[in-house]
Amino acid sequence: MINFRCDYGKIISAEELEERVSVTRQYVARAQQDDFGGWVDLPISYNRDEFARIKVAAEKINSDSDYLVCIGIGGSYLGHRAVIEALGGERGRTRIIYAGNSLSARGLKKIIEQIGDADFSINVISKSGTTTEPAVAFRVLKQLLDNKYGEEAAAGRIYATTDANKGALHDEAVAKGYATFVVPDNIGGRYSVLTAVGLLAIATAGINIDKLMDGAEEERASLISDGGKAADYAVLRNVMLEKGYNIEVLANFEPNFMYFNEWWKQLFGESEGKENKGIFPASVVYSTDLHSMGQYMQEGRRAIFETFVEVAGDFEGVKVPALAENLDGLQYLEGKELDNICKVATQATREAHANGSVPIMRIVIPDIDERSIGALIYFFEMSCALSAFTLGVNPFNQPGVEAYKVRMFELLGKPGYNN
Amino acid sequence: MINFRCDYGKIISAEELEERVSVTRQYVARAQQDDFGGWVDLPISYNRDEFARIKVAAEKINSDSDYLVCIGIGGSYLGHRAVIEALGGERGRTRIIYAGNSLSARGLKKIIEQIGDADFSINVISKSGTTTEPAVAFRVLKQLLDNKYGEEAAAGRIYATTDANKGALHDEAVAKGYATFVVPDNIGGRYSVLTAVGLLAIATAGINIDKLMDGAEEERASLISDGGKAADYAVLRNVMLEKGYNIEVLANFEPNFMYFNEWWKQLFGESEGKENKGIFPASVVYSTDLHSMGQYMQEGRRAIFETFVEVAGDFEGVKVPALAENLDGLQYLEGKELDNICKVATQATREAHANGSVPIMRIVIPDIDERSIGALIYFFEMSCALSAFTLGVNPFNQPGVEAYKVRMFELLGKPGYNN
Repeated sequence: MINFRCDYGKIISAEELEERVSVTRQYVARAQQDDFGGWVDLPISYNRDEFARIKVAAEKINSDSDYLVCIGIGGSYLGHRAVIEALGGERGRTRIIYAGNSLSARGLKKIIEQIGDADFSINVISKSGTTTEPAVAFRVLKQLLDNKYGEEAAAGRIYATTDANKGALHDEAVAKGYATFVVPDNIGGRYSVLTAVGLLAIATAGINIDKLMDGAEEERASLISDGGKAADYAVLRNVMLEKGYNIEVLANFEPNFMYFNEWWKQLFGESEGKENKGIFPASVVYSTDLHSMGQYMQEGRRAIFETFVEVAGDFEGVKVPALAENLDGLQYLEGKELDNICKVATQATREAHANGSVPIMRIVIPDIDERSIGALIYFFEMSCALSAFTLGVNPFNQPGVEAYKVRMFELLGKPGYNN
Repeated sequence: MINFRCDYGKIISAEELEERVSVTRQYVARAQQDDFGGWVDLPISYNRDEFARIKVAAEKINSDSDYLVCIGIGGSYLGHRAVIEALGGERGRTRIIYAGNSLSARGLKKIIEQIGDADFSINVISKSGTTTEPAVAFRVLKQLLDNKYGEEAAAGRIYATTDANKGALHDEAVAKGYATFVVPDNIGGRYSVLTAVGLLAIATAGINIDKLMDGAEEERASLISDGGKAADYAVLRNVMLEKGYNIEVLANFEPNFMYFNEWWKQLFGESEGKENKGIFPASVVYSTDLHSMGQYMQEGRRAIFETFVEVAGDFEGVKVPALAENLDGLQYLEGKELDNICKVATQATREAHANGSVPIMRIVIPDIDERSIGALIYFFEMSCALSAFTLGVNPFNQPGVEAYKVRMFELLGKPGYNN
């Protein structure tokens, strides 16, 4: 479903590329067999019973809650936000609020003010239940919920997505009778959006999660034997790095994709940024950023390559209105669909940046809908694993994330940590 | 008011730094005398009559409008959004909607749906009036306004910020009787937030623009003779680039600063990204991004340096609640102010990244208030000009922004452009 194109002629010969891709293709099996490779077969192997329970919970939340406060950070935050925003936001009664993803007191106070007197539920998402950011937010917001509904009714409004068998949040959920969903052992946070980690919020937003999984399944089918176009993308981005392009800019033309870009940055940055290696992942939303980062992209230091996420399908219904006078010089566009102008701008930008010596890659999705987004997620997950193996690092660990935490615990005087 | 600190000992000697800074200090006068250096003296020379008219207009808008739709792109968009969001958002009746900053048909449709039946006014911000993105949005939204209020009353709800004497938008404003404000000739878009370009939206959001200008004036006073700490920052970031660090990551710990980061990226990226030169500007909002980009920052390819924007003042009132049980292991934090924990995390992150061989710079603002933000804007503007001169490029032009437009006009068949 996902189309990938790159005019790589100036970068590498077809023969050399094919040779390298043939090596990378073998990493599909390596990913599949990894202890953290559960995402590879997830689109065909996911737990149908839990999936059905997610849909029931989403319906209940929409029946009794103006807000679902999703408490989580990193992979327990960015995936569902990316999907919900890319697909145009919430469609039913319940709005999603994202909490526990920072230590900002101003931010948490604002969330409490936003909830005000409205009805709300909580989806707390944490494998362990002890990560500082979500744990603090959960303490504060659980208190709010208890005060509003009483402890027993409040427990009926808490949905815990956590380890299946152990951990602080698991134990609390069992003790208090929260509904629970599972953070699988064999899927790391940044690959977990299509598990309960992401799906409860996505379903609550009124998005069709069957179609989302269908899209991922279809993309899996085209990549599972040999990595397909994901292998091409994985190899080419490594070739770019070897040629001195150490920054990849993911570019798209839809403001709603801002958080999809953030999800992509975590996926690639956290998978590859280790052992002093890895492409620096950055992102832009055009045409907005053509008027901010556009100058740099066109003429700045030539260490960037650019990967466009483009949409094939048309979106109709917003035309340039006709006016009696032509003061603004737009008469030549009157009656044209704005989406069509946007597509022309996409092509123009690609061509202009290529002329400015920026290597360009293109990832084309059929449309902005559940199936396309499900497929795109799978495409990027597979590309990322293959790319990290090609780079020579483990795509599934994140040893560096602990460094600031250890120092923070020392400074805060956490028991067991010495300053 | 703005404090700058850098433990540069591993990067450059104090003598060498002083020698280079002494050269850079001379560029203050060069900026001040430049045809586009109007921002240098703006905090003391701004037009008080127009300033008073902005406050009156902001009051009127709050009396008759649920929404002010600000139509603009690049420098006519990011500055006011950055300031309004950094200061916690709108405080009065009127909410700000940002339009005309993309070509997304989905985005424009969503804006129309958001306005719905509410009362609204328009602030269209464009030097020429012919930039495609804002001009298209203005056509569509003006039609909506005309249909709702009739053409005459609609004209009373349109505020045009444009060239003082000429151009499409200026001519239309005069013909139709819109209230007008001035985009100065001697201040480029990315340096224009403290002119009417940014101030009308900022004042309408209920923010005290007197204090904002006071902060800029105070910062100007400490930088105007020799660049002060802005010169240190300007030189050190160029030293980093020369040592192979080609990416600067601006880091802060407040989610509300996301658009301030975007404004900063335009300021530096568009000022320096030319002649195949310039540091690539990127940004993170921690602790959110410690769980996404954190791994890369800690252990990825060592071509990044990091500039923290920190807040000295405390924000009190959100404490970690005490619980009977200690299931989440947070007992050691009970009763602590969340903002204090956030400050500890800031220090921990700085130290952890420094240990991971990331050069660190710190910019400390007194608090998150109008004066501090006004000062920070001025500090960055001065730093940016001095840094670009140090790099050897013109801080005030943007020749590369035209490339995609020219190709787009060719493809769209705009009169005067040949495909």
